[in-house]
Amino acid sequence: MEDITIEFLEKPKLTNPIFIEGLPGVGNVGKLAAEHLLGELEAKKFADIYSKHFPPQVVVDDGGIIRLVGNQLHYVKRKGGQDLVILVGDFQGLTPEGQYELSDFIMNTILDMNVKRIYTLGGYGVGRMIATPRVIGAATGDTLVKDMKKLGVVFPKGEPGAGIVGASGLLLGLGKLRGLECICLMGETSGYFVDPKSAQAVLEVLQKALDVELDFGSLEERAKHIDQIASKLKDVEEEAERKEDLGYFG
Amino acid sequence: MEDITIEFLEKPKLTNPIFIEGLPGVGNVGKLAAEHLLGELEAKKFADIYSKHFPPQVVVDDGGIIRLVGNQLHYVKRKGGQDLVILVGDFQGLTPEGQYELSDFIMNTILDMNVKRIYTLGGYGVGRMIATPRVIGAATGDTLVKDMKKLGVVFPKGEPGAGIVGASGLLLGLGKLRGLECICLMGETSGYFVDPKSAQAVLEVLQKALDVELDFGSLEERAKHIDQIASKLKDVEEEAERKEDLGYFG
Amino acid sequence: MEDITIEFLEKPKLTNPIFIEGLPGVGNVGKLAAEHLLGELEAKKFADIYSKHFPPQVVVDDGGIIRLVGNQLHYVKRKGGQDLVILVGDFQGLTPEGQYELSDFIMNTILDMNVKRIYTLGGYGVGRMIATPRVIGAATGDTLVKDMKKLGVVFPKGEPGAGIVGASGLLLGLGKLRGLECICLMGETSGYFVDPKSAQAVLEVLQKALDVELDFGSLEERAKHIDQIASKLKDVEEEAERKEDLGYFG
Amino acid sequence: MEDITIEFLEKPKLTNPIFIEGLPGVGNVGKLAAEHLLGELEAKKFADIYSKHFPPQVVVDDGGIIRLVGNQLHYVKRKGGQDLVILVGDFQGLTPEGQYELSDFIMNTILDMNVKRIYTLGGYGVGRMIATPRVIGAATGDTLVKDMKKLGVVFPKGEPGAGIVGASGLLLGLGKLRGLECICLMGETSGYFVDPKSAQAVLEVLQKALDVELDFGSLEERAKHIDQIASKLKDVEEEAERKEDLGYFG
Repeated sequence: MEDITIEFLEKPKLTNPIFIEGLPGVGNVGKLAAEHLLGELEAKKFADIYSKHFPPQVVVDDGGIIRLVGNQLHYVKRKGGQDLVILVGDFQGLTPEGQYELSDFIMNTILDMNVKRIYTLGGYGVGRMIATPRVIGAATGDTLVKDMKKLGVVFPKGEPGAGIVGASGLLLGLGKLRGLECICLMGETSGYFVDPKSAQAVLEVLQKALDVELDFGSLEERAKHIDQIASKLKDVEEEAERKEDLGYFG
Repeated sequence: MEDITIEFLEKPKLTNPIFIEGLPGVGNVGKLAAEHLLGELEAKKFADIYSKHFPPQVVVDDGGIIRLVGNQLHYVKRKGGQDLVILVGDFQGLTPEGQYELSDFIMNTILDMNVKRIYTLGGYGVGRMIATPRVIGAATGDTLVKDMKKLGVVFPKGEPGAGIVGASGLLLGLGKLRGLECICLMGETSGYFVDPKSAQAVLEVLQKALDVELDFGSLEERAKHIDQIASKLKDVEEEAERKEDLGYFG
Repeated sequence: MEDITIEFLEKPKLTNPIFIEGLPGVGNVGKLAAEHLLGELEAKKFADIYSKHFPPQVVVDDGGIIRLVGNQLHYVKRKGGQDLVILVGDFQGLTPEGQYELSDFIMNTILDMNVKRIYTLGGYGVGRMIATPRVIGAATGDTLVKDMKKLGVVFPKGEPGAGIVGASGLLLGLGKLRGLECICLMGETSGYFVDPKSAQAVLEVLQKALDVELDFGSLEERAKHIDQIASKLKDVEEEAERKEDLGYFG
Repeated sequence: MEDITIEFLEKPKLTNPIFIEGLPGVGNVGKLAAEHLLGELEAKKFADIYSKHFPPQVVVDDGGIIRLVGNQLHYVKRKGGQDLVILVGDFQGLTPEGQYELSDFIMNTILDMNVKRIYTLGGYGVGRMIATPRVIGAATGDTLVKDMKKLGVVFPKGEPGAGIVGASGLLLGLGKLRGLECICLMGETSGYFVDPKSAQAVLEVLQKALDVELDFGSLEERAKHIDQIASKLKDVEEEAERKEDLGYFG
């Protein structure tokens, strides 16, 4: 069995495509952002990627139909400009070796499609609730850093201190070795919840960078829902603490 | 050393064989069901599968004779209908990669035998004791779902929420990519005990699907035995709790 | 880099050699027994086995000189009978795959040397101190079981319940597939200490099986030493418990 | 994807080069020492090593620019003597197999460069604060041990008891098999902190061995800083203990 297989549904002819990655990770920020982009830009799936570096697992939809877990490539054709290739998926590779092999495989696939620029999307876990998430950046060159600063991205000294782990980092690192222009956009997030607000912050940068128009209604809806859950959890916790205190002195 | 080896004791000529998988898993439901099927239908072993993806281990029988752990393929010839190929074994693959390689190997083996339909059997852990286990289904297509519903299988929305992990899931996922008709039958089970009652529930569906007649006497016997153990454990626990409570206030 | 390499210091010509394995494991019984055998029979090392399935580690001797960890093969020439090949080492393979590859490698090596019979030596952990350890057996055939019973080896029903894990089991399992006569001798041991007494019990069987004469002076010395340590630990524990009890009621 | 790749920025012609390894490890002693050496001797980077045995990660510098993690080779040309090749890096291999493959790869690389002698640098964790760290040695031969003793290196019986794990050990073990003269220098360290003082102790031996002149000002500065942190932590701990004691009796 091949370590990684790709099944093309279609081989789209794309003009100067830009690649965007949004796989599961901290706060699922990258995945939420990339999936929102898929919907808003009516992207079309053109390839399925399966691998033994993913969990040995199928997902089951509401009708009882199964699908082997994997990653998926989509494209968006745009008039008079650069087309888009968007990577989403159920999982990242389970092991470090798997991460390297998958990112290298994807790198080769998009080089074949003549991609010259990459955006990877992710969350930056800060361990506390964030009212207005900033978007932290990292890139392969100084000009890219300057360009991103103009769009509101921040590059604070010493952040992210631990570097960038996983596909969002690795695609940058491997892309740099291949001479690509690569940018990682990380939305600040608590890391405790799926975070649509952070995903929106990332997309607000990306829509300027890509020159697209996005509607954030559905993300805002999900953000409200998460806020309600977070708020309820906080109430329950405080209640529990109060009772505990009473019990202690009672 | 090969990652996986198969030793054929015999190369049976089978007519339109249906493949059935029952390996160890939650509540050992699939394994119990498949082994019961072996006994009831007087299946004959025709191949041993060994692999370094299994534990480095031998089992020892009551006479002191050892056997390397592995999986085994059996067949059942049936008059005027579809023959059966049944997979049982000591273990599933230990790692995700091992799971993929083993399922892919088995898929290739049964494709060589001209299998067109697969049933994988397993348990669905619900974390509480179940008096009358339902059989939850998942399949590769709508028609199969409809057929299974007629046999009493349920397909509740959002269940199994985490998808299907391991050989029972993977054989479905890989089978779908190869164009096979695949069905997973999962008996509800607490997950705390080996569960013959759940295995019987799965087999009651399967006997209708396969049009075979099964006697459940021995499974019912084992279920009673497990019920007694569970009931005793409950008594012991309650006793312990009672004593603890007395001590607390005494 | 090769997964496993063997460096021959010598290619001894052996007559009908019997293979004996004694690697680290429960109570280090097998390793102690095999190393005692090396000394008593003045075995000669003829090969070093290195592998990336062992830890990435060197050992340092009292003079500060290092040696890469590995396994070692020794031989003993015997007049008018069967010569011996003895495997000892610093470690077993770290992963299941590594265990399979190493055992398969060793199997191929000893098949090249025309080995027909294998003894693997190990400990059988019972979780309590044992005054007079029995030797539990397992083998690849009924005749071997009968022969071993005559030498005092016991084959209790359902023991070892979990089978035999690691090189001692795997060499039996792989040897059976290759048509070799294989016997595992497991000395009962608490599993809490290195156990020279259990190693002696195993060797007392083996000296009859191999028709050799062994002196057990040094093993008995080590056993006394371990008994003293165990006894002191017990005193310390009981003292601690006594103090705790007093504190509780004081 | 290759398991390990090396990218040469330059192929320096070196005279009888000596190889020095200083990768992250206990107290980061080896890494600190080797990096200090790089600065003091104005070493020049000539190769980058990337591998899927490293974490799937990029590091981000203060300007927001990323770099794939890896190891790096540097060289120092010296008048009329032996040139130096120095290995530093972000990580060691993550798995035992990865450690073996990386050390073997580096061994082949330096054999190509005609290296005959190796120094590996590391820390020896003793679990308590050390005022004046000794340098413990290990080597591939008696003459080397004698030479090192003259430079103040100690070879205490039974230390390091667990052998030497990781690149510092493995390069010695593999080097010995290839006929190289190899020496490991381990500075005693608590193991709780990054330890510049221990790195200095190692370098004080190495400067004599290599006949170079090193300034330790910056290392001493860092050592003071670490001492202050350690001292503050001790105060905080003692304070906490005092409060706890009061609470207990209060």
